Order: sequence, then C-alpha cells, then structure tokens
Amino acid sequence: MEIQNIIKEKIKTVNTQLEEYMKHPDLAQNSIFNAMNYSLFAGGKRLRPIIMLLVCDMLGGDEKEVLPFACALEMIHTYSLIHDDLPAMDNDDLRRGKPTNHKVFGEAAAILAGDALLNMAFEITSSINTENPKRALRAISVLSKASGALGMIGGQVIDIESENKAISHDMLLNLHSLKTGAIIRAAGVIGAVMSGAGEDEIKAVDSYCLNLGLAFQIRDDILDVTGNEETLGKPIGSDSENHKTTFVTLFGLEKSKKAVDEYTGKAISSLSVFKEKAKELTDLANYLTNRSV
Amino acid sequence: MEIQNIIKEKIKTVNTQLEEYMKHPDLAQNSIFNAMNYSLFAGGKRLRPIIMLLVCDMLGGDEKEVLPFACALEMIHTYSLIHDDLPAMDNDDLRRGKPTNHKVFGEAAAILAGDALLNMAFEITSSINTENPKRALRAISVLSKASGALGMIGGQVIDIESENKAISHDMLLNLHSLKTGAIIRAAGVIGAVMSGAGEDEIKAVDSYCLNLGLAFQIRDDILDVTGNEETLGKPIGSDSENHKTTFVTLFGLEKSKKAVDEYTGKAISSLSVFKEKAKELTDLANYLTNRSV
Repeated sequence: MEIQNIIKEKIKTVNTQLEEYMKHPDLAQNSIFNAMNYSLFAGGKRLRPIIMLLVCDMLGGDEKEVLPFACALEMIHTYSLIHDDLPAMDNDDLRRGKPTNHKVFGEAAAILAGDALLNMAFEITSSINTENPKRALRAISVLSKASGALGMIGGQVIDIESENKAISHDMLLNLHSLKTGAIIRAAGVIGAVMSGAGEDEIKAVDSYCLNLGLAFQIRDDILDVTGNEETLGKPIGSDSENHKTTFVTLFGLEKSKKAVDEYTGKAISSLSVFKEKAKELTDLANYLTNRSV
Repeated sequence: MEIQNIIKEKIKTVNTQLEEYMKHPDLAQNSIFNAMNYSLFAGGKRLRPIIMLLVCDMLGGDEKEVLPFACALEMIHTYSLIHDDLPAMDNDDLRRGKPTNHKVFGEAAAILAGDALLNMAFEITSSINTENPKRALRAISVLSKASGALGMIGGQVIDIESENKAISHDMLLNLHSLKTGAIIRAAGVIGAVMSGAGEDEIKAVDSYCLNLGLAFQIRDDILDVTGNEETLGKPIGSDSENHKTTFVTLFGLEKSKKAVDEYTGKAISSLSVFKEKAKELTDLANYLTNRSV
C-alpha cells in the first residue's frame, strides 16, 4: 500500500479511538470537554501516533495494546500546543488555521483543558487491560519522562528563555531534541516496548526517531520561510518575527535542506536490522522529507 | 505516640523523599526546577501524603511502595495551587504567606512549573520498583482519574464558572467532592491498594476520606471567616471578596461547625471494621476538626 494511504488509515484508527476516549456523561464541568475536543480534533497530523503504530506493525505487536499510548501521545502533544499558544508564552492567535484555544474558550479554560489532556494521557494508559502490566508501567515511565522537565517541558523552557537571543547550534539541537524530539522518540520506544521488542530493537527504533525528529524540525524551520500560509495554517515568517533562532537563521536554506536529507538518511539506516519489515517506516521518513505542510 | 508527633514524622519522611526526587543534573532548563521547588517546599501541610502513609500503617503495607504515590499526590496538589493562583484563574498574590509562583517567576514559568509537577507525579509513580506492577498500574489509574477532568480539574472548572453566582448545596458538594475531595479520596484508596487491601477495606478507607475531605473543606470555609490572617498565610474573607458560595455563606457559622463534627463522625465510624488499628486515622480526623490553620 502507498504510504499516504497507510497514513490515512492510521489517522482514522487514532481518531476513532480518541473520540471513544472523549465520551463522557453529562456533567457540570462539560465545558472543559468542549475545550479539550476543540484542539484535539483541530486537524493534527497525528505524526506521533502514526510512528508508534507503524513501529507496532513492523514488530508484529498487538495494536490494541499500543493504541492507548498512541492516543496519549496525541493528547500530550495537543496540551503542549494549547499551553504554548497562551498569551504568557508564544501568544499565538492561530493554530492550524483556526483561532487558538484561549481565543475561543478564554485563558482559564485553555490552561485547564491543557492540564486535563496531559492528565488524561495517564488516565487512558494506566487503565489499559493488559497481560503485561510491567511492560505498560515501563511505557508510562517512558511517556512521562519524555513529556516532563527533562523532556518536552524542559525544551519549552529553553525555547522561551532563548527568545531574542542568539543561541548556538548545540543549544538549538538540545532545544529541539527536548521540545519535539523527546515525544517523537517516545512514540517509537513505546511502540517497541509494548510490542515486546528486545533492547537492541528498541535502540534501533529510538535512533530512527531521534534522526526523524531532527529532520522533521529542520523541515519545519524551512517551511516557516518558504511555505504557503494557507496550506500551513499559520503565518509565514513567524519564527523570525518572534526573533527565534532556527536552523535556517543559523545555516541558511541550502544547508538546512541538506541537513534534512542527512538526518532522514540516518533515520532510515538505523532500521537496517529490520530489513524489508522497515519498508513503511522508511517510506514515512521519505514522505516527511518531501512534505509541504 | 501523639498524633502531632506522628504528623511531624510523616512530613519529614515525605519532604526527604520529595527532595530526593527533585535532584537533577545541571541543565539548560534549570530554572524550571527552581520554580517547582519554590512551591513544593513552601510549607504545605502534606495532608494528602499523611493520610496515605497512615492508611499504609493501618493496613501493614510497605511504606517504600506507598511513598512515591504520597509524593505524587503532593506534586499534583502543588501544581493545582500554582495554576489556580494564576491571573487568568483566581489571580492570587499570596499563598501560605508567600508571593505566589507567578509573582516570583512570571506567568510562563508558573504554567510550565505546574505542568512539570503534574507530569512528574506520573514519572515517579511509573518508575516504581515493585513486585506488583498490576497494583501500581491500578494506583496510577486511581491517581490520574482523581486529578483529571472527572476529578480535581472538573471541580476547578465548576469553581471558576460558579464565581459571582449563587449555587445550590448540591452543586457546592459536587464542586468540593471533585476539587478537593477526589485527591483526598485517592490518598486513602491508593494507600489501601498499594498495601494489598481487599475491596471492602478499600471501600471503608474511601468512605473515611470522602467524609474527612468534606469536614476539611467546611473547616476551611469557617477559617476563611474566623481565622487569623497571619496564622493562615492568606487574607481573611477572600472567599466572600471573590463572591464565592461557601458552606458558611449558605448555612451560617453555627450550622457549618455542626456539619464539620458530623462529617468527622462519619469519617471515623467508616473505619470501625479496622478496630484499634484505626487509632491514628481517628486521631487525625479529630485533630483536623479542631485545627486553626
């Protein structure tokens, strides 16, 4: 099957399960579910869940065991966007072409909706019905470490403190390996752990995700300069307007494009141990390298 | 031993372990640990961990298995206070007699410090070294449900939406059973689950906590009217200034005091099945009824 069609199928699987998780009785606090749903179903690319589900396929894992974690990653990704967009943080009015959460529901509701999505990631993963509680516990540990102060949140702290400052290539790599990389790596590692992979297989998947994450981030920086505002759903040039150091401001467009190819190549070769089973993840890496959104 | 001394011992145990958890290497995102530590060690009463540890003692559980969850509860409690105090929420300048987190570190850091504390609760509980991963998974499930949209966060949503509104006794009970009650119940239930208690024992402990939580909340409302600003560390009368419905505004002081006694009595009688083993938790309930801070 073509990777585009596989992606579409995985997105459908994830969205159906997310809708299932968001069902709730009629409650006095109904409004928070509206705010959570608004951002959770705002047209996210579901990249992280897709990676996790493709890792599961490659390793012959059981999708039912992996799906709660795939949905949890998307909840954590969504919460981080809601909080990042807040006036006290990046103060963004638009996200994926739509008004940001706090613009629609107000700041208090946006903060709480973010909190609730982060929290819900752990509700659904700890409620998993599994024969392997030890494996699930390890996966929750990977998930929480990736999203915490030593992972994604740490990256956001560095990002905020780096505004209007020139930062080094090393610090930029550190920032992105935490802010976006940690969760992308968790996608692969959890997919592998929950599929019963061995430690060497987990390491190979982790290396794939690490490099894929960097390629993805640099591609993002390039699109911020060269992209189409309408397709992208956010203003072009917002990075330089926010005085943010990016791969493009550090190295220019040409070198950045080369870096995307290099990291993509490294990602793909990390999977050599899986031979032809790595086809879908290889296709995904190539597909993301050439994306325009 | 007198309950005051037992409480002091438990607080020491919890604080020592919390300090252990907050150790981290020197990192680019060090500032977030400063913001987290500021509120985590701002002199909290550690009520929720104390309840959990006393439940563990009563049931002959292993304190090492329970302590990560006790610390997690305190992290979640602290994060909720940091976010509740934000300008977009209650807009409070003081907490426990000290400037609130965002007053010291700014709003962005306060939001992220709250996020990181919530997240860390799951980092430390999922990293537990246990022979009973199934039990730990259940305890994480209880923890996350208690702190989420169907628990504490749900209560905060109702609280914010009820400002400047007259609400009914039923809605006030609903609000408090979610906003403060859910986590206090989780303290007892997790303490019981991690101590290997049977379902009937878990139910008895849950009932104790449910009633103790209500007594505690009504006592809080009373102290907001009759308390000493200096001892309490926050302005007296802040509830009525914020136009919040409380047990005191609904029923007056005398009836509220009677309700504290009634709920305390119910809490204590819930533990009758444990006979003399319930002494410490009984003493705790009586101690809290008579507290002035």
